[in-house]
Amino acid sequence: MSGSGFASTPRPPYYAVIFSNQRQGPDDGYGETAQRMVELAATMPGFLGVESVRGEDGFGITVSYWESEEAIAAWRRHGEHAAARVRGREAWYAHFELRVARVERAYGGPARAGAE
Amino acid sequence: MSGSGFASTPRPPYYAVIFSNQRQGPDDGYGETAQRMVELAATMPGFLGVESVRGEDGFGITVSYWESEEAIAAWRRHGEHAAARVRGREAWYAHFELRVARVERAYGGPARAGAE
Repeated sequence: MSGSGFASTPRPPYYAVIFSNQRQGPDDGYGETAQRMVELAATMPGFLGVESVRGEDGFGITVSYWESEEAIAAWRRHGEHAAARVRGREAWYAHFELRVARVERAYGGPARAGAE
Repeated sequence: MSGSGFASTPRPPYYAVIFSNQRQGPDDGYGETAQRMVELAATMPGFLGVESVRGEDGFGITVSYWESEEAIAAWRRHGEHAAARVRGREAWYAHFELRVARVERAYGGPARAGAE
């Protein structure tokens, strides 16, 4: 996400993991772990990019993009990611919804600065 | 989105429209139009819900959920929505990416307050 919040994704089809979540409680390692998960995901085969926002009320949406269901499954099995998910369920999130979706078409606009 | 930022969606499959965007410039009617679009979308056949966040840097993600591609197409054809998109392209957004995806599986946790 260097320099822009947008993920540079290829032509569809590819996959999106839509993670909607409501933070609760103190930071307690959350910020550091969240940053680490983005860095770690970016090293995984099939990772295409991530877009993430959190509002002042603690509600957040993170969408990560992947080449395939297999790539998502491998990321899910990663030990450090699995451990972070446990802490998320136990402490950091009041609630979350996770949806896995196949991106079928995509377009953008106006022209991205520095691109096209 | 009354009382919670989460959309209550049915069992998959259904569709998600992932709209990532970077705001620019003054409000100039943006806030009012954005609110109106959420209210209007909610009246459309096949609308399932919406989740939306904007960060302090003006980067935002809005995900709307729909029963079918046909429902998305009908919303796209709505005149007021079409007019709002023109203003978005011309004034409100420095850049956006729109992705249409078929949600294939979903789960949530921990138990939602007041549900289950």
